[in-house]
Amino acid sequence: MSRPAETLRRVREEVNRLHAELLRWGLVAWTSGNVSARVPDADLMVIKPSGLGYADLTPDTMVVTDLHGTVVEGEHAPSSDTASHAYVYRAMPHVNGIVHTHSPYATAWAARNEAVPCAITAMADEFGGEIPLGPFALIGGDEIGRGIVATLSGHRSPAVIMRGHGVFTIGADAQAAVKAAVMCEDVARTVHLARVHGPLQPLPEHHVDALYERYQNVYGQHDDPQGARP
Amino acid sequence: MSRPAETLRRVREEVNRLHAELLRWGLVAWTSGNVSARVPDADLMVIKPSGLGYADLTPDTMVVTDLHGTVVEGEHAPSSDTASHAYVYRAMPHVNGIVHTHSPYATAWAARNEAVPCAITAMADEFGGEIPLGPFALIGGDEIGRGIVATLSGHRSPAVIMRGHGVFTIGADAQAAVKAAVMCEDVARTVHLARVHGPLQPLPEHHVDALYERYQNVYGQHDDPQGARP
Amino acid sequence: MSRPAETLRRVREEVNRLHAELLRWGLVAWTSGNVSARVPDADLMVIKPSGLGYADLTPDTMVVTDLHGTVVEGEHAPSSDTASHAYVYRAMPHVNGIVHTHSPYATAWAARNEAVPCAITAMADEFGGEIPLGPFALIGGDEIGRGIVATLSGHRSPAVIMRGHGVFTIGADAQAAVKAAVMCEDVARTVHLARVHGPLQPLPEHHVDALYERYQNVYGQHDDPQGARP
Amino acid sequence: MSRPAETLRRVREEVNRLHAELLRWGLVAWTSGNVSARVPDADLMVIKPSGLGYADLTPDTMVVTDLHGTVVEGEHAPSSDTASHAYVYRAMPHVNGIVHTHSPYATAWAARNEAVPCAITAMADEFGGEIPLGPFALIGGDEIGRGIVATLSGHRSPAVIMRGHGVFTIGADAQAAVKAAVMCEDVARTVHLARVHGPLQPLPEHHVDALYERYQNVYGQHDDPQGARP
Repeated sequence: MSRPAETLRRVREEVNRLHAELLRWGLVAWTSGNVSARVPDADLMVIKPSGLGYADLTPDTMVVTDLHGTVVEGEHAPSSDTASHAYVYRAMPHVNGIVHTHSPYATAWAARNEAVPCAITAMADEFGGEIPLGPFALIGGDEIGRGIVATLSGHRSPAVIMRGHGVFTIGADAQAAVKAAVMCEDVARTVHLARVHGPLQPLPEHHVDALYERYQNVYGQHDDPQGARP
Repeated sequence: MSRPAETLRRVREEVNRLHAELLRWGLVAWTSGNVSARVPDADLMVIKPSGLGYADLTPDTMVVTDLHGTVVEGEHAPSSDTASHAYVYRAMPHVNGIVHTHSPYATAWAARNEAVPCAITAMADEFGGEIPLGPFALIGGDEIGRGIVATLSGHRSPAVIMRGHGVFTIGADAQAAVKAAVMCEDVARTVHLARVHGPLQPLPEHHVDALYERYQNVYGQHDDPQGARP
Repeated sequence: MSRPAETLRRVREEVNRLHAELLRWGLVAWTSGNVSARVPDADLMVIKPSGLGYADLTPDTMVVTDLHGTVVEGEHAPSSDTASHAYVYRAMPHVNGIVHTHSPYATAWAARNEAVPCAITAMADEFGGEIPLGPFALIGGDEIGRGIVATLSGHRSPAVIMRGHGVFTIGADAQAAVKAAVMCEDVARTVHLARVHGPLQPLPEHHVDALYERYQNVYGQHDDPQGARP
Repeated sequence: MSRPAETLRRVREEVNRLHAELLRWGLVAWTSGNVSARVPDADLMVIKPSGLGYADLTPDTMVVTDLHGTVVEGEHAPSSDTASHAYVYRAMPHVNGIVHTHSPYATAWAARNEAVPCAITAMADEFGGEIPLGPFALIGGDEIGRGIVATLSGHRSPAVIMRGHGVFTIGADAQAAVKAAVMCEDVARTVHLARVHGPLQPLPEHHVDALYERYQNVYGQHDDPQGARP
């Protein structure tokens, strides 16, 4: 097997495995949600097929497209969000993985058109402040991708909640994007619950900065590449 | 084995398998809820036995009735909702599967006598607008079936929440009805959570229409029959 | 093995198995909660040992006591609630199984000193009306048992929520009591959620009566003894 | 193998096993949370490596440090909370296990800077009153440890919720600390839910005292050491 074929196989397996994480952490229902990864050293990405159930996903059902969303390899039609994933990969070269979910607490903030305020240290660690709100965009074209890039460019947060829709996260690899999706729902839930019984008390900015700095540079295993820290 | 017997066996297995999905997605408690399917090329349906626990269900415990609810084959009494399922199959020839649950968030809307407003794109996709509220009806006869047909006829939504009771969904096959039940609870929960911290902002109708149109005609794998897209 | 020994073995296995159901349905945390069963044709009961984790329970760890709570067989100290279970068995000869949990939604009603109003058909079916509130009683003696008997005597509901404490359920056998505990949490949750967005609308009494009558006499498999219908 | 090596092995296995309990009871997301245990007859502790996922934890990945947080054995960097765990072990000789989580309901109270009031008997049993609120402290040094000791010294509760952060629990062994973390989330949830529909009614102090006294001295199996009662 040539090296590019081996790489593709490995990315298919990784993207397939990470879909199971979405299910395990309760972020998706039935066929909703998707994960993609950029293929190293190639203008390609691997993404979930459209409308298949999680129990039916295998490495072989994953779809390979170019970075304009045209199918290059795969027997299935790719996710409806393919054009938007492709737009993000073209616009953000440091992004190598993207995740989309309708996880319930985060999507509830999105349905109200509210960013999630940074009221707990876990948010400062992971998101460096609030989780921002992106614009409303219809599904199918690259409009969602444009909204993601416009919102997250220059922002610390790897997660954006899109108005009336749900969550998109980016990462230095697909696993980092999945982690951001898991943590996004976790903190969106805690902050939702906190606000049920009283006004939120956002953390002071100097504390947020200190926590974010430490988490990004000290937390985890130092010999790992940043993106691979689970 | 003659072909009709093979068909019945296959439908028994499918209906049995789909009951496990109700449990897996957290839609049912103890013995509550049920799935039925119309038997192709026959005036028959297959439905859950009454009051059996989910762990005790097998293809053989499923009950075959005619489309007036009279038992044709099976050692158990059929679900209390049999007459209502039968009414729907008689009145709606395009419906081949029906699901009933008391899933908690959707039933909470039903207990307040409120339709679930369409405030997120996932609702526009799957339900084409709000999830409508059906009338109060006593259990046992076909009154619930009449309420389902009156509410869903000419409506985009495959789900109805019956006042003070719970959820009924219909589909081109039983799996599509199960999907509608899973998505009904998922969106009923998200919209419930959204409203906890502020008024709901229903999506504009032209966006709902565009999302529904795309999801029904583009989403999924094009070579699958519509009803089988999971 | 003599017949009484066989009976005891069977009851130990049943009570052990039913503890796993409490865990599976999310009704208990760590060591909280317990199940007991009356031993047929003997003035004995089988109950959970005190303070053991669910993973450490086996038929052999179950404790056999007389109907005053004195240990007859077993290597462990019995549940702190033993005297109260024993009181109920002495006072209510038709009760052959008892369950106790601190399931979260039902206990939330108990913490507010509120009965759960009958606002959905599933409550009418199973409880025949509201789930009543019992008195505050300290743990350890039979005071809780006295409160259970005082509240449930002549009441349709097999469940009582004890002020500031949690849930006790009774049944014609231990499985029926476990079912009542599962359904108690299920309906307590749905009615809690319903009330979040508006006032509750209790079902009219004639509907409650009709639903309860049907569920108790028609629902389930007719050749089963009432208590065994799961 | 020398006895100290055997002891270390046993503590590594115990601490590894208890991390799985945090996951099982829904207290942690992705890599958040940690457990440590003091090593008997040595000025050492065993703690989770920093930033590893729960699926990657094994006894061998656990890190051994001295009681100032300096790594003594282990291939990974220890948890970011190591200095704080070490501070608690130095200051509180009776503490042999510590747990940290961001469990959602308890952290919601912490985000609002509110202690959890004692409104149910399960809280009186386990915590002997309210779960107190500790000060805000940055992560990384021993400031959190100082806050834990300042808050829990002379307090009945084995759990403290740290402002804007999450839960820390202590125990006579690591399993007791895990139990306290599980029960902390359980009661924080129930009391949160209770308050949704009305003001809380804290239990009278003489009842709290009686329940706590009984639970600490009578509950469980008498031949077990206090800390080992699960």
